[in-house]
Amino acid sequence: MEVVNLPAVSRVAVCGGTHGNELSGVYLVRELQKKKKGGADDVSVTMVISNPRAVQQCRRYVETDLNRCFTAATLSAPVSDKTPYEMVRAQELNALLGPKGADEAADLLCDLHNTTSNMGLCIFSPVACDWICMQIYRHLQREMPSWPVKYLSFERPAAEAFSLDSVGKHGLTIEIGPQPHGVVRADIFNAMKEGVRLMLDWIQKFNSGVLFDGGEVEVYTMGKNMDYPRDEETHSITATIHPQLQDRDFCLLHPGDPLFLTFSGKTVTYKGTEPLYPVFVNECAYYEKGIALYLARRKTVAVPSIQVKRD
Amino acid sequence: MEVVNLPAVSRVAVCGGTHGNELSGVYLVRELQKKKKGGADDVSVTMVISNPRAVQQCRRYVETDLNRCFTAATLSAPVSDKTPYEMVRAQELNALLGPKGADEAADLLCDLHNTTSNMGLCIFSPVACDWICMQIYRHLQREMPSWPVKYLSFERPAAEAFSLDSVGKHGLTIEIGPQPHGVVRADIFNAMKEGVRLMLDWIQKFNSGVLFDGGEVEVYTMGKNMDYPRDEETHSITATIHPQLQDRDFCLLHPGDPLFLTFSGKTVTYKGTEPLYPVFVNECAYYEKGIALYLARRKTVAVPSIQVKRD
Repeated sequence: MEVVNLPAVSRVAVCGGTHGNELSGVYLVRELQKKKKGGADDVSVTMVISNPRAVQQCRRYVETDLNRCFTAATLSAPVSDKTPYEMVRAQELNALLGPKGADEAADLLCDLHNTTSNMGLCIFSPVACDWICMQIYRHLQREMPSWPVKYLSFERPAAEAFSLDSVGKHGLTIEIGPQPHGVVRADIFNAMKEGVRLMLDWIQKFNSGVLFDGGEVEVYTMGKNMDYPRDEETHSITATIHPQLQDRDFCLLHPGDPLFLTFSGKTVTYKGTEPLYPVFVNECAYYEKGIALYLARRKTVAVPSIQVKRD
Repeated sequence: MEVVNLPAVSRVAVCGGTHGNELSGVYLVRELQKKKKGGADDVSVTMVISNPRAVQQCRRYVETDLNRCFTAATLSAPVSDKTPYEMVRAQELNALLGPKGADEAADLLCDLHNTTSNMGLCIFSPVACDWICMQIYRHLQREMPSWPVKYLSFERPAAEAFSLDSVGKHGLTIEIGPQPHGVVRADIFNAMKEGVRLMLDWIQKFNSGVLFDGGEVEVYTMGKNMDYPRDEETHSITATIHPQLQDRDFCLLHPGDPLFLTFSGKTVTYKGTEPLYPVFVNECAYYEKGIALYLARRKTVAVPSIQVKRD
C-alpha cells in the first residue's frame, strides 16, 4: 500500500465570527480562548474572532462580506481611508495567519460558520483535493455517527479562492445548520464544539505518527447557483423555495421536481436536464447575492493513506 | 343564551414589515396589494408595509424598534430632526390607521410577524379580553387543524400598549414561527396567508349577521421574562437555551427542569416555584433586549356568543 508522507500540522488557527451573526463560532472561539490553549502539546492553536466589528453589531458584515476578501488581488490591493473595513481586516488577518501561499502561513486554518440551510455538519475545502482535510472529514464522519457529515469542495485555483480558510496551507470551513443567524442553538453549538475537538484530536494523532488508511470518500463539488424568480420591474422575489425542496439539502433534485412556490401559489419546476444535489437551500445571507441554492455534483475520490513526514 | 352585540368590522388594516426582516408579512402584504382589494365587498382592507426603510435594508429596524413606539406618550411626543425614524413613522401610521383610541381608528388592525421560536401560529392581543379577537382565534383553530394555533394576551391598560396592533379598535398580531429572520419559508408563508384569509372570511360572516356561539377558550397571558446567564464583566452570554427546552414553546416548564446549557457544558435548571409555559424561547431579536424567554400562564376564558349590532 502506498503511503503519502505530509508535513506535520503544527500551527493551527481556529476562526469564528468571520460572519458576525453566525454565533456558534463566535461563542466557541470565546470559550476556547478562556482555556488559553485549545490544542495538544505539540500543536499551537490560535483562536481568532475574525470580524469583531460585525460580531459587536451582530451583522454578517459592516461594509462588505469579509469571506470574499481573500483573493490574491484583494490581499495585495493598496489601502486608503476609503477602503471598506473588511478589506483592511482581511489584510490584517493575512498578516496574522498567512501570508496566503507563504511558508509562514498557518499549517491549517479552520473557519467556523453557520447556515440557515439544513446542511448538517459540512466540511468545505477551498481547493479540489486536500488529503489532510479529507482525512479529517473521514474522522468526523466515523466519530459523529448521529450527525450527517458531508464534504464540499470548490474546484478553482488557490489564488482565486476568496475565503478566509484559503489563507492556511490547508483550509477547512466547518459549516453547520440549520440555525437562524443571530441565534445560538445548543444542539448546533455542541456539534461544532465536537467537530473542532475531533479535528484537533486527529491533528494530534497525525503529528504523533499514526498512519491513516486510505479509502474512497464521497465528495460534493460546488456547481452553478440559481436565483429566486423575481419581478422584472421591482426585482423583488416572487417565490420562495418549494416546501418539497425546503430542508432537503444534499437530496437529489430531478428534472421536473418542484423548485419554487410563487407567493400566488404556483409551482415552478426544475428545468435542468441533469439530476443534481441542491445545497445552501434558502440560505438567509444569499438573498442579497441573488442565490436561492447551489447545485452540486457528487463524486467518489480515492484518498491515499497518509502519515506524517519525519524531518 | 345571552348574545353580545358588537359593531360591524368595516375597516380593516393588514400590516407587514413592522419588523423589516420578518419576511412572511412583507411578501404577503405585497401579494395582497397586487390584488388591490384583499377583503369582501362590505369590508375595506388597507394593506400597509409598516417600516419600508427597515424592509429595504432587511433589518428589524433602522434606529429603534417600531413595535415599541405606539404608547400614548410616544404617539404624542413632539418631533424634531433628531427624532428616530421609527418614532416619526409611528406617528404617520397612527394618522393613517388611527388615531389610537379615536372613532376614526381602523375597526381591526392585524399586524403580521415572524419569530425564530417554535411558536406555531400564535394570535396576540394587546389587551386582556377582546371577544372579536377570541372568536377569530376560535375560527382559525377550527379551520387550520394541522397547525398549532394559540392565543396570547397582554394584561395591561390600552394606553400603555406599545405595539402597532393597539392602534386599531381591535388589535391582533399574527406571529408565526419558527422562521429565521431574513428568510421566507413556504410552509410559514402559506400558514400566514391562510390565517389572514380565514380572518377576513370570519369578518365577512360576522358583518353579514352570522351568530358566533360562545364557549370556553384557552388563553395564555404573558408573564415575566428571563435573561440568559451572562459574564459579569463582559455582559456576554455564557449559555444558551438547553436542548431539552429548545423548540418547546407552550410546553409546561417545571421547577428543576433544564433551562440553559452553558458553553462549557453545564446545565442550569429552572429555579422558579411555579410550573409555567415558556414562550418566545430563543427568539433572535430578544438577545439585545436581554430576554431568553417569557414565562406565560394558561387560563380558560368563557367567551360569549357574539353577533353584529344592527344600526
